[in-house]
Amino acid sequence: MKPTVAVLMGSDSDAPSLKPCGDTLRGLGIPFVAKVLSAHRTPDETVAFVKSAKARGFKVIIAAAGGAAHLAGVAAAHTPLPVIGIPVETPSFKGIDSLLSTAQMPAGTPVATVAVGPAGVKNAAFLAARILALGDTKLGKALEKYKKETKEKILGKKIKL
Amino acid sequence: MKPTVAVLMGSDSDAPSLKPCGDTLRGLGIPFVAKVLSAHRTPDETVAFVKSAKARGFKVIIAAAGGAAHLAGVAAAHTPLPVIGIPVETPSFKGIDSLLSTAQMPAGTPVATVAVGPAGVKNAAFLAARILALGDTKLGKALEKYKKETKEKILGKKIKL
Amino acid sequence: MKPTVAVLMGSDSDAPSLKPCGDTLRGLGIPFVAKVLSAHRTPDETVAFVKSAKARGFKVIIAAAGGAAHLAGVAAAHTPLPVIGIPVETPSFKGIDSLLSTAQMPAGTPVATVAVGPAGVKNAAFLAARILALGDTKLGKALEKYKKETKEKILGKKIKL
Amino acid sequence: MKPTVAVLMGSDSDAPSLKPCGDTLRGLGIPFVAKVLSAHRTPDETVAFVKSAKARGFKVIIAAAGGAAHLAGVAAAHTPLPVIGIPVETPSFKGIDSLLSTAQMPAGTPVATVAVGPAGVKNAAFLAARILALGDTKLGKALEKYKKETKEKILGKKIKL
Amino acid sequence: MKPTVAVLMGSDSDAPSLKPCGDTLRGLGIPFVAKVLSAHRTPDETVAFVKSAKARGFKVIIAAAGGAAHLAGVAAAHTPLPVIGIPVETPSFKGIDSLLSTAQMPAGTPVATVAVGPAGVKNAAFLAARILALGDTKLGKALEKYKKETKEKILGKKIKL
Amino acid sequence: MKPTVAVLMGSDSDAPSLKPCGDTLRGLGIPFVAKVLSAHRTPDETVAFVKSAKARGFKVIIAAAGGAAHLAGVAAAHTPLPVIGIPVETPSFKGIDSLLSTAQMPAGTPVATVAVGPAGVKNAAFLAARILALGDTKLGKALEKYKKETKEKILGKKIKL
Amino acid sequence: MKPTVAVLMGSDSDAPSLKPCGDTLRGLGIPFVAKVLSAHRTPDETVAFVKSAKARGFKVIIAAAGGAAHLAGVAAAHTPLPVIGIPVETPSFKGIDSLLSTAQMPAGTPVATVAVGPAGVKNAAFLAARILALGDTKLGKALEKYKKETKEKILGKKIKL
Amino acid sequence: MKPTVAVLMGSDSDAPSLKPCGDTLRGLGIPFVAKVLSAHRTPDETVAFVKSAKARGFKVIIAAAGGAAHLAGVAAAHTPLPVIGIPVETPSFKGIDSLLSTAQMPAGTPVATVAVGPAGVKNAAFLAARILALGDTKLGKALEKYKKETKEKILGKKIKL
Repeated sequence: MKPTVAVLMGSDSDAPSLKPCGDTLRGLGIPFVAKVLSAHRTPDETVAFVKSAKARGFKVIIAAAGGAAHLAGVAAAHTPLPVIGIPVETPSFKGIDSLLSTAQMPAGTPVATVAVGPAGVKNAAFLAARILALGDTKLGKALEKYKKETKEKILGKKIKL
Repeated sequence: MKPTVAVLMGSDSDAPSLKPCGDTLRGLGIPFVAKVLSAHRTPDETVAFVKSAKARGFKVIIAAAGGAAHLAGVAAAHTPLPVIGIPVETPSFKGIDSLLSTAQMPAGTPVATVAVGPAGVKNAAFLAARILALGDTKLGKALEKYKKETKEKILGKKIKL
Repeated sequence: MKPTVAVLMGSDSDAPSLKPCGDTLRGLGIPFVAKVLSAHRTPDETVAFVKSAKARGFKVIIAAAGGAAHLAGVAAAHTPLPVIGIPVETPSFKGIDSLLSTAQMPAGTPVATVAVGPAGVKNAAFLAARILALGDTKLGKALEKYKKETKEKILGKKIKL
Repeated sequence: MKPTVAVLMGSDSDAPSLKPCGDTLRGLGIPFVAKVLSAHRTPDETVAFVKSAKARGFKVIIAAAGGAAHLAGVAAAHTPLPVIGIPVETPSFKGIDSLLSTAQMPAGTPVATVAVGPAGVKNAAFLAARILALGDTKLGKALEKYKKETKEKILGKKIKL
Repeated sequence: MKPTVAVLMGSDSDAPSLKPCGDTLRGLGIPFVAKVLSAHRTPDETVAFVKSAKARGFKVIIAAAGGAAHLAGVAAAHTPLPVIGIPVETPSFKGIDSLLSTAQMPAGTPVATVAVGPAGVKNAAFLAARILALGDTKLGKALEKYKKETKEKILGKKIKL
Repeated sequence: MKPTVAVLMGSDSDAPSLKPCGDTLRGLGIPFVAKVLSAHRTPDETVAFVKSAKARGFKVIIAAAGGAAHLAGVAAAHTPLPVIGIPVETPSFKGIDSLLSTAQMPAGTPVATVAVGPAGVKNAAFLAARILALGDTKLGKALEKYKKETKEKILGKKIKL
Repeated sequence: MKPTVAVLMGSDSDAPSLKPCGDTLRGLGIPFVAKVLSAHRTPDETVAFVKSAKARGFKVIIAAAGGAAHLAGVAAAHTPLPVIGIPVETPSFKGIDSLLSTAQMPAGTPVATVAVGPAGVKNAAFLAARILALGDTKLGKALEKYKKETKEKILGKKIKL
Repeated sequence: MKPTVAVLMGSDSDAPSLKPCGDTLRGLGIPFVAKVLSAHRTPDETVAFVKSAKARGFKVIIAAAGGAAHLAGVAAAHTPLPVIGIPVETPSFKGIDSLLSTAQMPAGTPVATVAVGPAGVKNAAFLAARILALGDTKLGKALEKYKKETKEKILGKKIKL
């Protein structure tokens, strides 16, 4: 099946922490590709990929970067597709640098920013799914099923304080 | 034309600062409704509106709130539609409270967070447009035209330092 | 004995860190129930529980959540009871997100916010106790006894620098 | 009528910004006294007042202070009554100093912290009201009425974006 | 004289606050050009300019941007010249977003970051001058003269407390 | 009378905001000199002044600086006298930069840091007074008198909420 | 020898991290006592100790506390002696809460704040020494000797990058 | 070969974390010396070294310090050479203190600040190289080669999400 989501990351060292994003996309049946493309170290290749993404059938781009996190913004500058930014947690500043670098975009070039941390990594996939489900009833049902199962799992929890 | 975007705000005092969101949606030809609905002061009405939004033809929900900004999160909890959160600037903490309350959502309930400040207000509309344009070629052209005009305006600027 | 305090948490993974809250309530002889109820993943059940809490005899609600911590705010929106919010420490932002999401509530829907960290977890119980002691002399005596013992323990410490 | 709430502030310069707290208490029919008492500049008088508060019939203490905001904490150390802390906004740090100084109390001495800013000032009164309403049905009705009126006012708002 | 410094800014609205940079360069006799080029709104033109900068005789690039401030980083990715980043103060976050977006660059693509605020704007010029003075004795003398005059001006100040 | 306190500031533009420090010293009868000496723009003169301060009869040095506030630290490095640092409020970061640059000194070179803001400016004088009063009974009495008057002024305040 | 410095800490769990303060005082030959006294859990005993400190021959009080760190401020309110505040690092907020709670004191009640972290712990002792050395030539010589030895140790370091 | 870069650090404990700076300089064939010189503990030696640096043939000074990080600023005050500041990560505040102390310099004394963390350590070397390459074609080629190899390494990465 042709991939509709591209997951870009600035460094292959981010791959392990982005695994839950891939797992969630797979779990919802969304075909995707994952690529290492850096805004700073492979700028020409990044621009080339993003510019051609729409024509090649991609519908949503997810971009994960940390620190001076420019990848999602660069992507949003070169494509009309919705771009989801994952602000990667950083050793010193814990991702507040990544969050501000990703969210505080100028008018006209929005990045749909999700949370710093593992929940954000998964939510990039869920947000892509919500967007794609606008035109894909089957995906809408997969999301609904996930929601219902989550609810039941939580309500079934027995805790003791 | 039937509205496809709902712009919710926690307080009518937010309306003036959200004007550029409405202007941008209008400028791109996207029909929308704007409503004052508070997660804390009209919780039942908020939930009722959001729950019925998809069935009533809405495709994207934009929710603006400040401080302990729960509105976008509450919306995302009650609808499968993509929800865009605008973190409203606050008098004391300048919107860092709003940004964290909007972005740091748990897995399964994503909020597409945009910037604090006027650029974010406009970008909520642009992000909605990018999402809707996936299924609307005419809107895609409107976005392209806007982008081109912006570029030309910038390149035509003469500055003196 | 009928529980007068409900301790809600957004995820069962918070239970271990909330143990000291349960221990303190037990130590002061305050009957309570603890439940996993998420503002985002089980929103309907959360609202239903909170709406019925007063009628079922609860007097104080303690709600613990992290990140975009909406649980205490949602509770305060649906009950006239005093709601105590515990901002749970988070991996990336250490709970400053939780603190701001819990404390910065709009007028009319207060959340009595306690500290991020283990002291806050205990203090949620102590604050509930101070509130309940206004109508319960025996509990007031238990609090007094605790205070005296704490003082004596501290004054008895021998340290060496 | 004998006052049940004492509103303490570290400086008379805080009085104007605390006015909405007084207005809210009055609006709900809660008798109160307001006093300037500083943790640092009138420490003995502060301690003396707080120590005798319960015996004199007070049920809730509200303490407002800014910067190294110790007033609420000092109050909580010398009374078994519930103490509500209002972190006053400060010129340089906008109240983040006040918030942390008020909220991050050690175990055994809780301060029920409300928001920095005008909403917090009102919420100190609303939180006191929720606490007092546990033993005062009439006050509970006044709170209910306020809530209903607020809801209707919001739902009646017409906005234009 | 052929310009050796290019001062880029993301928006013409930044020009007034960047005036002291131009004044300082002029005062030191350094020929420069100033251009509005946005990393997000004119990405292709920005890349084209930066890529050709060295060949056209530029020796230092100064890039000023605010918020998710990617301009200096994008420049550093496409040129081997030293790039100086001015983090522009922003309405909501006062430039801490700009500072982190500018300074926290990944290995291999350094941005020489100066202060947020007017001193930083001037220091971008002074830093360019120090760099250029390594190969320009006359400029070194101009810097020395400035330093001496500044010192004398300060030592001549009469103040009264 | 020979001055015992030297008040140093990095720029004469700081003089107006430091006026309350001078007023307080004068009010307590402490002779002082005030000088503009910059750690960065008149480094040699600063070092020379500080190195000779003890021999010339100074007992306490107060140093006020903002931003990358090195003045107090440089003073502490070149004198065995107690050095009090006033972190000056800054336009962008409101003095958190000054506070951290002043307080976070390495072991062996302490700076007695006071608050950012007007209270800190006065407290630099009061702290100098407390230090000098260890060897000056008359000054101790002046401090006591000030404290008593402050207390009476506060207790005499009538406020209305 | 009669102690001239009192080192107070809010909890005996702080003792290990305060050890370097004791070591430094001992190394400089300054007699001291160390006591566990909490502003919140033993408030009466704390006030009593501080009030009598001057009469009992103490010259400097060092107070270490974390979180809503009121101990140094309470001490400064009840004694005319110079009070040095050590802001203790905290698990969640790393001591920024302690730093602001300690430094941002109101006018008239200064706390000489040192760094968060081990350097601050030692510097509390060095600052006390600088203050005491104003009236103690022998201590002045001990400080000088320490400084010289430190310098020689550093200059003797051989490093390899 | 005569060293053109001096790498200064405030403490020999910083040496291990600065190793990548040395490795990068060596890899690019830039001769350098590394020295432990503290702005606070060896102030005279630091000033002497920096003052003579230009005459001894140095072209760029790299200064690494943490906390109240004054070393780079002190260097910039005493030399006309370009000074690169590495803000060292700190245990409590993770280097935000170092970053602000290094970057927020007053006009006339610029410090070229790089990132907190390992990338910044390397980038200090790369920035020095970009500056030196303005007058050294061979170094320019070494930089180009490094850039090309980096790009190829990244593009060759195979990842799996």
